[in-house]
Amino acid sequence: MIAVDWGTSSLRVYLLDSRGTILDQLASASGILSVEGGRFAGALEAVAGDWLGAGETQIVMSGMIGSRQGWLEVPYAACPAGLDEIAAGMRKVAWNRAEVWIAPGITCRDEAGVPDVIRGEETQILGSLDRLGAGRHTICLPGTHSKWVEVENGRITRFSTHMTGETFAVFKAHSLLGRMMKDGVTDQDAFADGVRRSADAGGLLHHLFGVRSRGLFGELPDTASASYLSGLLIGHEIHAARSAARIVHLLCTPQLAEIYRQALDAVGMQSSTLDSNAVTKGLFALASRLDKH
Amino acid sequence: MIAVDWGTSSLRVYLLDSRGTILDQLASASGILSVEGGRFAGALEAVAGDWLGAGETQIVMSGMIGSRQGWLEVPYAACPAGLDEIAAGMRKVAWNRAEVWIAPGITCRDEAGVPDVIRGEETQILGSLDRLGAGRHTICLPGTHSKWVEVENGRITRFSTHMTGETFAVFKAHSLLGRMMKDGVTDQDAFADGVRRSADAGGLLHHLFGVRSRGLFGELPDTASASYLSGLLIGHEIHAARSAARIVHLLCTPQLAEIYRQALDAVGMQSSTLDSNAVTKGLFALASRLDKH
Repeated sequence: MIAVDWGTSSLRVYLLDSRGTILDQLASASGILSVEGGRFAGALEAVAGDWLGAGETQIVMSGMIGSRQGWLEVPYAACPAGLDEIAAGMRKVAWNRAEVWIAPGITCRDEAGVPDVIRGEETQILGSLDRLGAGRHTICLPGTHSKWVEVENGRITRFSTHMTGETFAVFKAHSLLGRMMKDGVTDQDAFADGVRRSADAGGLLHHLFGVRSRGLFGELPDTASASYLSGLLIGHEIHAARSAARIVHLLCTPQLAEIYRQALDAVGMQSSTLDSNAVTKGLFALASRLDKH
Repeated sequence: MIAVDWGTSSLRVYLLDSRGTILDQLASASGILSVEGGRFAGALEAVAGDWLGAGETQIVMSGMIGSRQGWLEVPYAACPAGLDEIAAGMRKVAWNRAEVWIAPGITCRDEAGVPDVIRGEETQILGSLDRLGAGRHTICLPGTHSKWVEVENGRITRFSTHMTGETFAVFKAHSLLGRMMKDGVTDQDAFADGVRRSADAGGLLHHLFGVRSRGLFGELPDTASASYLSGLLIGHEIHAARSAARIVHLLCTPQLAEIYRQALDAVGMQSSTLDSNAVTKGLFALASRLDKH
């Protein structure tokens, strides 16, 4: 089968054998935002055409390809959601070259009734369930929109999204704070200072101004202020999202996992790192349920 | 005398009589960032040249003109600071056309030792002290960088800056949230919803994503999401900055005062509006102390 992780800015395809082992993989920059006029079939064929030509007929996809801007909008599955509920929400695309299925995202509502959504990461979480086993677990998927996910006995019970990475990016590129910043290597001490600062009173909007005022007083070098801002934002994310769990399972690239490990360590929380290639395991598990449709 | 409020993006000059009454006023777009090569004298003469030609010789200024990027860097006065301390920190500019004095900004440190700064607004606060009288008062100056200021018996004891307005601007112009927004008139209900949301658990970085997820579920129209974001950010500012005071004195334009009055009302706090032209009163009071230099 062909497993496809198709997001806003990238397209990753994997050729899997009948046990789910990766035989080959390819990536392209054809994220859904760069595909014009709805030509998703053409974009997929451009990347995976050789495999299709060789006779592969089953394709399972997840990510923003199932959003309103994608190939086919697939409604979110409601939490609590495990493999069964997510598989039941899959939708088939009309295409004569192969049988193409798109996984749904998931949704939940917090105590105040405000909805939250995941589209793409649910597949990585499904691919990590075996490793986690029974019981309650907290998974964090750091990034532009970090996801904190509670899993209980193989089902996602609730989650929250935090705009940490995007806030860092827009402040660095477009705010007064960014204009002061000089690029430099990551400053570990400034990062840890930022994480510590996030525990203080005053709120994030006040702490952000501290990036400038500390710079004005020579207490934060321009080359360290990006690291401080990163620690500040990640610290706020952790304090807001932390649950009763003592261990946070990080599901991301090794680089991001190391950054979050340091931040969690600074606030006295333990972390472990899950396999960041869990997406193919999740898509393979979903494919195994397709015969039940 | 001539009173000058010279900020980053604007220059306002006022001709005052011997009692501090405004005889005439002019404004220009010659904020300090638009003055090239340090030609501040020329920029000032271009606006106030007629008054200087008529014999005015005393000029008192405040704002970013006293910053490192201004005409002369005037060090911040430390809190607690009242009229005496701020007047004592004034510095004279070398200019043969008139006697030009620049007021210092003020600084304080919070419990964690992180510095904060004000440059410009201190003059407006000085100009409001008579109206406030003795005792303890909380003043809020909303804006790009909102200032919350504690005054006790005529002296500024402490304050905090919140990047509320700038956060709104960068998210509206440069984030995923802004791309969803359609311009519309201010939506009072969405604004109040945002203020209410700020009191919920989850933290600002999570609440920001709610602007998108509520939009995805049709629970927040694209024409209302800017108002919701505004209420969310102002609500977070108020919850973080509110002191024991029951009344918040708003020192800003009538338009901004109305927005903040609604937000304060939504969280059960009273507000009053101070004269937003307090800057000339403050500069006049500072000028009256110059003979003590």
